[in-house]
Amino acid sequence: MNNGICILPIHGIGEVQPGDNLADMLVDALRRHDMAFESGDVLVVTQKVISKAEGRLVNLETVEPSHMARMAALQGRKDAAYYEVVLRESRRIVRMDRGVLITETHHGFVCANAGVDESNVPGEHCVTLLPIDPDASAMRLRLALRDRCRVDVAVIISDTFGRPWREGQVNVAIGVAGLAPLVDYVGQQDSYGYTMHASVIAVADELASAAELVMGKVDRVPAAVVRGYSVTPSDNGARVLIRAPERDLFR
Amino acid sequence: MNNGICILPIHGIGEVQPGDNLADMLVDALRRHDMAFESGDVLVVTQKVISKAEGRLVNLETVEPSHMARMAALQGRKDAAYYEVVLRESRRIVRMDRGVLITETHHGFVCANAGVDESNVPGEHCVTLLPIDPDASAMRLRLALRDRCRVDVAVIISDTFGRPWREGQVNVAIGVAGLAPLVDYVGQQDSYGYTMHASVIAVADELASAAELVMGKVDRVPAAVVRGYSVTPSDNGARVLIRAPERDLFR
Repeated sequence: MNNGICILPIHGIGEVQPGDNLADMLVDALRRHDMAFESGDVLVVTQKVISKAEGRLVNLETVEPSHMARMAALQGRKDAAYYEVVLRESRRIVRMDRGVLITETHHGFVCANAGVDESNVPGEHCVTLLPIDPDASAMRLRLALRDRCRVDVAVIISDTFGRPWREGQVNVAIGVAGLAPLVDYVGQQDSYGYTMHASVIAVADELASAAELVMGKVDRVPAAVVRGYSVTPSDNGARVLIRAPERDLFR
Repeated sequence: MNNGICILPIHGIGEVQPGDNLADMLVDALRRHDMAFESGDVLVVTQKVISKAEGRLVNLETVEPSHMARMAALQGRKDAAYYEVVLRESRRIVRMDRGVLITETHHGFVCANAGVDESNVPGEHCVTLLPIDPDASAMRLRLALRDRCRVDVAVIISDTFGRPWREGQVNVAIGVAGLAPLVDYVGQQDSYGYTMHASVIAVADELASAAELVMGKVDRVPAAVVRGYSVTPSDNGARVLIRAPERDLFR
């Protein structure tokens, strides 16, 4: 039974601080478990640790809330400074109800509260923001691993998003380096000779979802290695996963 | 490095015909590769083979298209009989444009063309429909594997859905037996003592996505085993993944 893939959690990375060298921390954590990155691996890292390493943290006590942030706080269960940060991270409000904001971030991602997150952050008043350019963050980590270990590792930065129509959140890719986020079967023939018209698979999102299965929200496993997946190389980055409004029949 | 999971494709199942015993075919395919199901495994099977085994096939030559189906065919690239089948499988049309129908199926799933599919089906005029009750189909397969092999295997029936906001399709769970599709972290504390409010993860969808990574559209691998994932037992079925409209801020 060949062509299987394995998903390995990276335990024991430790607390990530602004300025930390995440590549070193990941390599060291693996080594403590007698493991190492191998060329062809896909590394999935949560947005949370990338944002911490990049110093994308805001102390809510330093934030002056606007009128709209105070309106949101009246309906929701977070304080006005939190909503102010969400509004600053957003390009557009898709929906706002009962203190939940679905917004489009400056990157173009549509998610709850613009990805601003209070969980797994030290300090009572501290939140993380999404990386400014998650594709660039992923590429930096990919290059750092190449420099340090001479391995060709694709990198996915993941975050947990809600979806329309369906309950529950899933991990998706917000930053990608070294692999094609979309694999296109259009024009290929299936096993009966039927030419497929609409089979573009968002493999970066599927890889991010697969990694989430070994992470666990409360277990502090912010990274995983997917081993054995046959990567399609690309430097497109995760921005190809953002659907143009005029192509989006679901909107 | 413990707690890893593996995803193993099941090769060589062969062509599935109406009335076939899928449990037998899966067990035999594994055995030919010196493998067997183990208790705790999650079996992910595509809708396509379930529908074939259950005879959920329609010959388009037998279908009389309605007025609306003929209207859709004027704009799209499929023939009117195809659209007629889509309309019959739908409870509601969410969006209809340029020959693409996003509909809500009778189960409550929102997807393109109500899951009616021409690919990987024998015969020029044949399409598959989604199973009538995918949770029941998953449960039947689960019980058949228990009877035959004395193993406790959770079963997910997967299909490939498009999403709002994001390019590309991903595998999701449309039928589930033996595992909780949603794992709820709400009320648990993270590693800093912050109590999480909104972390319900759709693990059944993540497992389906993970399995897609070893399937491949053109390789005829319609099933995979996820081994090492710690299942939360449940008999809820995939219907808990369908979000009630009044709870759906994304709509």
